[in-house]
Amino acid sequence: MVGDGEAETGPLEGSWKAISFLNPARDGAVLPILHLNGYKIAGPTVLGRSSDEEVRKLLEGHGYEVHFVEGEDPHRMHQAFAATLDACHESIRGIQREAREGSAGGNTGVSGRPRWPAIVLRTPKGWTGPGEVGGLPVEGTFRSHQVPLSSVRADPEQLAMLEEWMRSYRPDELFDEEGRLIPELADLAPRGARRMGASPHANGGRVLRDLDLPDFRGYALPVEKPATERHESTRKLGELLRDTFTSNAGQRNLRLFCPDEVNSNRLGAVFEVENRCFVGPTIPNDDHVSGDGRVFEVLSEHLCEGWLEGYLLTGRHGLFATYEAFGMIAASMMVQHAKWLEEADKLPWRDPIASLNVLLTSTAWRNDHNGFSHQGPGLIDVMLSKRGTVARIYLPPDANSLLSVADHCLRSRDYVNLIVIDKQPQLQWLGMEAAIEHAAAGASVWEWASNDGEGEPDVVLGCAGDVPTLETVAAAHWLRQNAPELRVRVVNVVDLMTLFPREFHPHGMDETRFVELFTADKPVVFAFHGYQRAIHEIVHGHVDVDRFHVRGFNEQGTTTTPFDMVVLNGMSRYHLAAEALRRAERTSDARLRDRAPTLISECEAAIARATAYSREHFEDPPEINDWTWTP
Amino acid sequence: MVGDGEAETGPLEGSWKAISFLNPARDGAVLPILHLNGYKIAGPTVLGRSSDEEVRKLLEGHGYEVHFVEGEDPHRMHQAFAATLDACHESIRGIQREAREGSAGGNTGVSGRPRWPAIVLRTPKGWTGPGEVGGLPVEGTFRSHQVPLSSVRADPEQLAMLEEWMRSYRPDELFDEEGRLIPELADLAPRGARRMGASPHANGGRVLRDLDLPDFRGYALPVEKPATERHESTRKLGELLRDTFTSNAGQRNLRLFCPDEVNSNRLGAVFEVENRCFVGPTIPNDDHVSGDGRVFEVLSEHLCEGWLEGYLLTGRHGLFATYEAFGMIAASMMVQHAKWLEEADKLPWRDPIASLNVLLTSTAWRNDHNGFSHQGPGLIDVMLSKRGTVARIYLPPDANSLLSVADHCLRSRDYVNLIVIDKQPQLQWLGMEAAIEHAAAGASVWEWASNDGEGEPDVVLGCAGDVPTLETVAAAHWLRQNAPELRVRVVNVVDLMTLFPREFHPHGMDETRFVELFTADKPVVFAFHGYQRAIHEIVHGHVDVDRFHVRGFNEQGTTTTPFDMVVLNGMSRYHLAAEALRRAERTSDARLRDRAPTLISECEAAIARATAYSREHFEDPPEINDWTWTP
Repeated sequence: MVGDGEAETGPLEGSWKAISFLNPARDGAVLPILHLNGYKIAGPTVLGRSSDEEVRKLLEGHGYEVHFVEGEDPHRMHQAFAATLDACHESIRGIQREAREGSAGGNTGVSGRPRWPAIVLRTPKGWTGPGEVGGLPVEGTFRSHQVPLSSVRADPEQLAMLEEWMRSYRPDELFDEEGRLIPELADLAPRGARRMGASPHANGGRVLRDLDLPDFRGYALPVEKPATERHESTRKLGELLRDTFTSNAGQRNLRLFCPDEVNSNRLGAVFEVENRCFVGPTIPNDDHVSGDGRVFEVLSEHLCEGWLEGYLLTGRHGLFATYEAFGMIAASMMVQHAKWLEEADKLPWRDPIASLNVLLTSTAWRNDHNGFSHQGPGLIDVMLSKRGTVARIYLPPDANSLLSVADHCLRSRDYVNLIVIDKQPQLQWLGMEAAIEHAAAGASVWEWASNDGEGEPDVVLGCAGDVPTLETVAAAHWLRQNAPELRVRVVNVVDLMTLFPREFHPHGMDETRFVELFTADKPVVFAFHGYQRAIHEIVHGHVDVDRFHVRGFNEQGTTTTPFDMVVLNGMSRYHLAAEALRRAERTSDARLRDRAPTLISECEAAIARATAYSREHFEDPPEINDWTWTP
Repeated sequence: MVGDGEAETGPLEGSWKAISFLNPARDGAVLPILHLNGYKIAGPTVLGRSSDEEVRKLLEGHGYEVHFVEGEDPHRMHQAFAATLDACHESIRGIQREAREGSAGGNTGVSGRPRWPAIVLRTPKGWTGPGEVGGLPVEGTFRSHQVPLSSVRADPEQLAMLEEWMRSYRPDELFDEEGRLIPELADLAPRGARRMGASPHANGGRVLRDLDLPDFRGYALPVEKPATERHESTRKLGELLRDTFTSNAGQRNLRLFCPDEVNSNRLGAVFEVENRCFVGPTIPNDDHVSGDGRVFEVLSEHLCEGWLEGYLLTGRHGLFATYEAFGMIAASMMVQHAKWLEEADKLPWRDPIASLNVLLTSTAWRNDHNGFSHQGPGLIDVMLSKRGTVARIYLPPDANSLLSVADHCLRSRDYVNLIVIDKQPQLQWLGMEAAIEHAAAGASVWEWASNDGEGEPDVVLGCAGDVPTLETVAAAHWLRQNAPELRVRVVNVVDLMTLFPREFHPHGMDETRFVELFTADKPVVFAFHGYQRAIHEIVHGHVDVDRFHVRGFNEQGTTTTPFDMVVLNGMSRYHLAAEALRRAERTSDARLRDRAPTLISECEAAIARATAYSREHFEDPPEINDWTWTP
């Protein structure tokens, strides 16, 4: 039921369209009750002041069969509302019966959108409350909002009105002399699984069944040598999802939600076995569209997020895949879902539900063609502040680590998992076994990219995210070739929460592990996928973190080349190499100190060359575009 | 014009309702064109597949007069669309004429919502593009999205198709032999203020007039002694806004937008001179509702934010006042507006516009009655990452500093200003002159609350935000009484961005000022209104910031008492005092070191007492509720 104030909110407006994706042969049903009492708090509402004819047209335009229940007499209204509920229930059952009988022969799709019932309930605001207070009308007006009798402590007349009002519910007939509800009424309360908190419709964890997940190792990209081949990593996730749809076809408990479309995000393999859900007229040219589809594409992040939340809360599994920047549209909904999980965690009778899995792809760094509006990694900042009991952020740098992370997330319970990885062709770093080990550790030293041997490095190059990893490894490579005496350690972070101190987040590192990775006192040049300063918020509390020098998305962007994006934000391989030289200079030996200024100038020149090239050719120079690791 | 994909987004859905707030006698008009071509990318759209009858009902239900233009023949469609535009223009002009003539006698309101025109345009997707490629239909299907001919470089047949397609625009007739547009066509381009970028409708700064602002000092709360009286600070802002409405009644360039209602946020003084705007039927009990009102209350953060953005972009002024937690609903819109400002700043022909002023009130700390869903200061984190050229966050601790900040924000240009202050009665700290000086500095030492005299303190107590300020000053008071030998300095921060290093934000402090406030090496116990770790993100780069120990909102909340909220988040006066003792112990002398454990135990006992009291009485103990500063 929605009140008329709430009915004005945008996201809810969009949800009227959801019946175009609701299949009566397989899905449940919603009976919308639009309760119009004319006001939100003090002001009128749009629909509350619209004529019945307009409200009817609006809902009929959305595809509903509209039932009005209007009046002021409680007894008459009670009967009228009960009769309307019965009629609507019968109507819903009829729609479902027809669809299910029709689908008995194996035709589980539907071709047209049924006309589902909806109720418009018009009653006075403050109905059955005080009619008039202090000479001013209250019932039926904005004055009945919140506290209609505000002076009962001081004003005996108001106290008497309160008593009269409360007595109108006839407590003498409802409670015995000791204040207990009379057995006749107490017996009306539902028992067992029909109690609100015990019903599987409200406590979906009770009916949750594990996904039957194929072995993700089977989708591995072979990586003989690190950083030599480019692939679209999310395609591999598409294949894993495809086979997960197949292996769970029997239990039918997986759905994929995607506002910007599955193909665009390179998850299109799912259409080998699944369809886009649409309950409406289809035409011959439609591509994998069916009323029975389990892929939901609608250009509303709110609908996608809301559908997934509802699907999880009723004991199923799913993934919301979106352009990174536009995940922010549903940020408030994710925050509220996270809060719900944080609190549900405290209730022993609440069974765990599948995690809210969000794939942020088409990321800030590779929206070079779409431009600045599409460049925004801010959802990471939003989720960082949520409790460690529920919040998880993963930045797999390649296909195999993505597969390992996705497998973990799809098995997990009661989390909000953000998975951030781009869809464009990208260098592959880790073979499957190495990726599994790395993802499980959350963060580890990439020894093949490091040259610190057994001892302490002069500088640590840290990175989190696919593009930052590319630039960091390329910086290590450049330093190895141009300043071989500099001892460089490369640390890659997949699980961002591991960087928190252990006491702040359950994934957080203890101090021993932190020092193992980042040393106790060496400078750390860190390249981060998100807004750069967030790293300082995360690492605070570890030893001497003033030595972290972070480059990341710094709100610099436009329509340009991929390398120009990292240049604009000061995160290119040459920026990182120069920063490493600058920072290491203070701690390292004289031979490097002498050469550092020259080397830094070379980095600056390389940036200038690449920039000039891209201005002339509208693409990055081959030494950037085709760069690979050579030992 | 909206495409059918976009038409599915929730916020846009809500915007159909905006005509209930559009006054034809004074406002402009929008002619919505709903362009339906059947697909978004690969999938069908809801309205694209809905019948004309349903689409008509939907828009008529929203209150529009619907014009359909449908077809595939470009020439016929061109004529039909032009004729429809003419008809709609005439219809809009007619509505405006009637309203304006009717209002000539001084009745500037309207009583009913006019039936504004809207156009539904149905054309094939990929219209006039390639009809068929590789044997598959393209025009009119999902295949025409993005790049219909993807192999022109390699496939001569596709290249020929591209040429044929491009030639269909008859470039020979449009350009001369040197590739210049022929003068006959070039002359059609508008000149001067009719150019898109020069029109004041698109470059609103051109017609921006300064607000005629009353002297905010006139609304000062007298504060003879700090921290002795409690007032609802936002009421003073309401009075300032009331008189600002009056003084700008002539230039009519101020509006107030408020999803949760102006009275609830204690800005109700505006209704002494202004009304809620509503263009629809009114009834006798309505409270300050008029078609001519300049206060916009609609329970859609998206509509409020969108309206304000449009109002500013067309050269006017406004304020969006919302419950803090629900500002997050419009976060993505604020991010995009900030990005727009960041880029507009680079365009010399773009004139500055009034800032986007957002009042976040009914904050996390004082939603003790509404509970956890209403407790979320996350919009601060979202805005922190935006460029220093546009992003501002103010946390005035009392009425006079709020007035000073609001005056500054209402005069400013091209910023997004978040102003965060609660609406509940709160202690007042600063007289007007002190408040002005403090707000201008952004952060300063509160000497009356400090006891470090001329020398260095043992510990700095920093704070930002009204509730953190209360707890911090009370902690300083407790320490003064219980550990008088501890030298404590209290630093209050109004302008959060001053804590950034200067090179990161134009409001940022240089190192000299930072050390003046926070010393170079003493421990800082900082109480923050927002999520606590954000402070580490801000102060990084200043000297030795590992010594900042921040308490803030830590995602702990429920329906409880105000003091229990600060206890749950470890930010109570006793938590702060204990933390100060713990941190100062390492740097201070032996006499304190001996007593510290006992004092910390006393803090813990005080917390336990207060908690026990609130569990028993459902309110905080009098020594908390009625606490005032005594020198």
